[in-house]
Amino acid sequence: MARVSQAHLDARRRQILDAAALCFARNGFHATSMQDVLKEADLSAGAVYRYFSGKEELIAAIVGEVLGEVRGAFEEASRQSPPPPPDSLVAAVLGRVLALRANLVLDGVPAFPRLVVQVWSEIPRNDELAAVLREGYGGVRAAWARIVEAYQETGAMRPDIEPDHVARTMIASVLGFIAQQSLFGPAPVDVLRDGLRALMSMSSGQVDTAAEDGAVNLVETPSN
Amino acid sequence: MARVSQAHLDARRRQILDAAALCFARNGFHATSMQDVLKEADLSAGAVYRYFSGKEELIAAIVGEVLGEVRGAFEEASRQSPPPPPDSLVAAVLGRVLALRANLVLDGVPAFPRLVVQVWSEIPRNDELAAVLREGYGGVRAAWARIVEAYQETGAMRPDIEPDHVARTMIASVLGFIAQQSLFGPAPVDVLRDGLRALMSMSSGQVDTAAEDGAVNLVETPSN
Repeated sequence: MARVSQAHLDARRRQILDAAALCFARNGFHATSMQDVLKEADLSAGAVYRYFSGKEELIAAIVGEVLGEVRGAFEEASRQSPPPPPDSLVAAVLGRVLALRANLVLDGVPAFPRLVVQVWSEIPRNDELAAVLREGYGGVRAAWARIVEAYQETGAMRPDIEPDHVARTMIASVLGFIAQQSLFGPAPVDVLRDGLRALMSMSSGQVDTAAEDGAVNLVETPSN
Repeated sequence: MARVSQAHLDARRRQILDAAALCFARNGFHATSMQDVLKEADLSAGAVYRYFSGKEELIAAIVGEVLGEVRGAFEEASRQSPPPPPDSLVAAVLGRVLALRANLVLDGVPAFPRLVVQVWSEIPRNDELAAVLREGYGGVRAAWARIVEAYQETGAMRPDIEPDHVARTMIASVLGFIAQQSLFGPAPVDVLRDGLRALMSMSSGQVDTAAEDGAVNLVETPSN
């Protein structure tokens, strides 16, 4: 057998993962067959199965790669003192993840957001994928919480709020921004950065003031 | 024919919509048949088709109802002076939408978040549903932008950021919070409210300072 360089193996693996990502983004995990992936990658079954045993391994590798990147970026940021502010941090990490997948295009727009939503929709019927996602999410959430603790220790953020709640909210803003792109088309990450920055310019009131309760009640009874 | 009261008609319609919502949340729109909906609702085909011609009408009605509630709540809030702060407003509206659907339960947990993600995953292959969602989203986004303008006019938020960017970010935080619940189980809306409140307690730096660029670059090259 001819000797094959590591670079060649890596490139072939990349080619297969990108083809699978495109197929999953287009039709969802459930409706995609390995035949679809072979065709998209323009490779033989032997060439593909040498790397991945099937769809399960493909989707786990794709999801694991993204979560690893995101987690690495947040762990890196959590080691900085002081850590970057949340608006810049979110924009930098999301921008990097999107840029690394800019070659995945469907119907003329980036396919990554659609891939993400298709993966989400598969979770209830796929325990293995759910486990991969839950573990990766846990890592990102823990790294974010450490950054929030640093904000609080340096006085940049009020200290009386559970760091995990802030971590979940920051992750929610990114997941929701990706969902928006999947639904309504691409938008620059600056939109999200600006929005977070505007929020940061507000002042946060005390917890449970009378004025606030009034506001909430009004919203809860719009028929009044 | 027997005369049927409006209350009865409304209750029957509700019963069908809830059954369809459960089916869509469980298996997705694509894999759900009208037979599944009839079975879940425990009604005859005649009873159901009197109200809805098929799956398309069912999902459009479900999505339209939710979007109408959300839009109404934000339009109501935008008429208040000053409008409620974003953390309370988001928690009140999301809490209300979730509470109205608390009767939809799958595997012991609220089914609404799963329904939302299944609807999103259907968008790329369903132009009609995409149009319903795009129109409703546009309305919510415009109502949010008016609230942001009020924050800016009253000096509660820095005025140099595009209101639509803030609107998109606020909506993203809610969509992402719903996605999290779909993936990892229920969480009280207080989590999101707290997280937004913590963000509001920070101060937002100037745009494009040197320090900020440094932070972003560090994140973008984690291998350094």
